[in-house]
Amino acid sequence: MNQTHPERVLISEVGMRDGLQSVKSIMPTEYKFKLIDALYEAGVREIEVCSFVPAKLLPQMADAPEVVRYALRYADLTVMALVPNLRGARNALEAGAHKLTLPVSASEAHSLANVRKTRQQMVQEVREIVALRNEIAPSVKIEAGISTAFGCTIQGTVSEDDVVRLSSQLVAAGADETGLSDTTGYANPAQVRRLFRRVFAEIGDKCGAAHMHNTRGLGMANNLAAYDVGVRTFDASLGGLGGCPYAPGASGNVVTEDLVFMFEAMGIDTGINIAKLIGAREPLKAGVPQEAVYGMVAEAGVPLTFEQQV
Amino acid sequence: MNQTHPERVLISEVGMRDGLQSVKSIMPTEYKFKLIDALYEAGVREIEVCSFVPAKLLPQMADAPEVVRYALRYADLTVMALVPNLRGARNALEAGAHKLTLPVSASEAHSLANVRKTRQQMVQEVREIVALRNEIAPSVKIEAGISTAFGCTIQGTVSEDDVVRLSSQLVAAGADETGLSDTTGYANPAQVRRLFRRVFAEIGDKCGAAHMHNTRGLGMANNLAAYDVGVRTFDASLGGLGGCPYAPGASGNVVTEDLVFMFEAMGIDTGINIAKLIGAREPLKAGVPQEAVYGMVAEAGVPLTFEQQV
Repeated sequence: MNQTHPERVLISEVGMRDGLQSVKSIMPTEYKFKLIDALYEAGVREIEVCSFVPAKLLPQMADAPEVVRYALRYADLTVMALVPNLRGARNALEAGAHKLTLPVSASEAHSLANVRKTRQQMVQEVREIVALRNEIAPSVKIEAGISTAFGCTIQGTVSEDDVVRLSSQLVAAGADETGLSDTTGYANPAQVRRLFRRVFAEIGDKCGAAHMHNTRGLGMANNLAAYDVGVRTFDASLGGLGGCPYAPGASGNVVTEDLVFMFEAMGIDTGINIAKLIGAREPLKAGVPQEAVYGMVAEAGVPLTFEQQV
Repeated sequence: MNQTHPERVLISEVGMRDGLQSVKSIMPTEYKFKLIDALYEAGVREIEVCSFVPAKLLPQMADAPEVVRYALRYADLTVMALVPNLRGARNALEAGAHKLTLPVSASEAHSLANVRKTRQQMVQEVREIVALRNEIAPSVKIEAGISTAFGCTIQGTVSEDDVVRLSSQLVAAGADETGLSDTTGYANPAQVRRLFRRVFAEIGDKCGAAHMHNTRGLGMANNLAAYDVGVRTFDASLGGLGGCPYAPGASGNVVTEDLVFMFEAMGIDTGINIAKLIGAREPLKAGVPQEAVYGMVAEAGVPLTFEQQV
C-alpha cells in the first residue's frame, strides 16, 4: 500500500466459540484441530477456541480442554476461551488458555435471562476470576465483553451511561480490557462512534474489541465506525457462523473473510492472507456439513484491483 | 433524535431500472404502477423508473414512456430515467422525465465493452444531450454517473486521476451533477473517502450520488464513508434487486430498506417511513414472483430501540 507504516488491526476469530455454540451439529474434535491449523496458517493470531461451560448444557464444548491444549502448539497464537463464571475460569486456566473472556451484559434484563445474575454479581464474578488468575496464572489476560451494549431485545434501549459506568467497574475489578458487543444487531455507526469514544475517555487503552453482528446489514459499517474512533481489535466469525442463542431474533456474526478484505483493501494490515483464510472454510464446512456458511468475498471472489495491489 | 435540525439525505430508488434491467422476469406495467404508488407512499421522492433503450434489446423497458407518465402524477416526485444515448434522451424528454442519468464509464475497456464508445465519445454524447435538453425542456436535470469509478473487472485498477478529470469534463459538457458508481463491487471505504473528496474538490456541489454495490459485503460501509465526506444522495434498490449485467461477476445492489434503516437509526432524516418501505416489497414480489428479494432489516425486523426512538 501507499503507507510505509500501515495501521494494524487484530482480527480475533470467534467462530469456534460464538459460531459453534449456536449450531446444532457438533464439530468432531479432529476438525477443530484442522480448523485451528488452517486459521493459524492463514495468519490468524488470536482464536477464541471454545467456551468452558458444562458439557451437558453445551455438548459442542465437551472437548474444550483438549482443544485449548492443541492450540497451544502455536507459540505466537493467543488462545482464548470464553468463561461464563469462576468455575469455567478455573477450568480454562488449568487447560492453559492465554486469555479469558467473560460476557457481562449491560442490560439487567438480558443478564438475568442469560446467566441468572445481576450486572453487579457479574462484576463480582470478574473480581473473583482476577483473584484466581493472580494466584495460579498471573500472565493470563482477562477480558470482559460488555454484551447488549447497543440495545437489548428484552428491555430495548440500554443507557450509554450504564455501559460507560460498567466499563469502569469492570476495569476496577481487574479486567485487563473491556470490549463492546452488539449482541442483538441493534447498533448503528453513529452510536458505535459515540459509545466507543466515551468508553475510551473512561478507561483509555483498556478499551478492547468491537464485537459486531450483521443481523440488520450494518456489521461492516459498524466495524468501520469503531475503527474510525480508535478500536483496533475486531471479533469476527469464519463463514459468519453463529450468533447468541439467548437473544431472540439475533443472528449473523460478521464474516471474518469480508472483514479482513475490507481492512486489507483499505491498506490496513491484518497479518492475514485472504486466499488462505478463504481456504480455511474447507475444514469448517467439512466439520459441520449441515450448517450454512456465509461470505460475500468468498462467493464473489477477490477483486482484480486487490490482486494488483498486494 | 437529539438534533433540532437533523442532517438530511436523499435516497434515490433505482430498483425499477438497475434491478429490473437485470432480472429475467418482465414486471407487468400495472405492477410498476403499484410499486411507484407504494414507494411514493413510503416517502421516496426520487425514483429512477426505467431506462430508454430499444425494446428489442431490453423488453423489460418497452413500457418506459407509459411508466414515466404514470409517475408524473405525483407533483413532488422526481421522475428519473436512464438514457444510454441521445436517442434515449429524446424519448425520455418527450415522455416528460424530470431528470436523466447517463452512465459514463471511467474505464476505457468497460466503456467499449458496455456501449461500444470511448469515454470521450460519451462526454460528447452528454454535450449533445445537454444541447437537446436546453432546446426542448430546459428545466430537466442531466446527471452523468461515472461507472467503474472504483475499479473494473476487465482492466482492474482505474486511475483516480482519470475519474477526477472525467468528472470535470462531464461538468464542462453541461452535466448538472456527476455521481460515482461502484459498478463492480470493488470499492473500499478508504478509496470512497479519498475519491469523493477529490471529486468534491474538483466540481464542488455538482458532485452527485454514491451508487454502491454490495457484491463483497462493503456496500453499507462504503455508503457510510461517502456520507462522512459530504455525499448526501444515495442510490439503492428495493429488495436489493439487480446489478449491472455487463460487468462479469457483479451483483448485489445496496438494499434500500437497510440503507434507510442505517441513516434513520443514526438520526439522519431520509423522509422515508421504514415500515411502509418494507411494505413496498409486496408489489415488487408480486410483480416479479420468480426473482429473489433481499434485505436484512426486512428479515430481522426493526429493533425495539428504533421503535422507541421514532
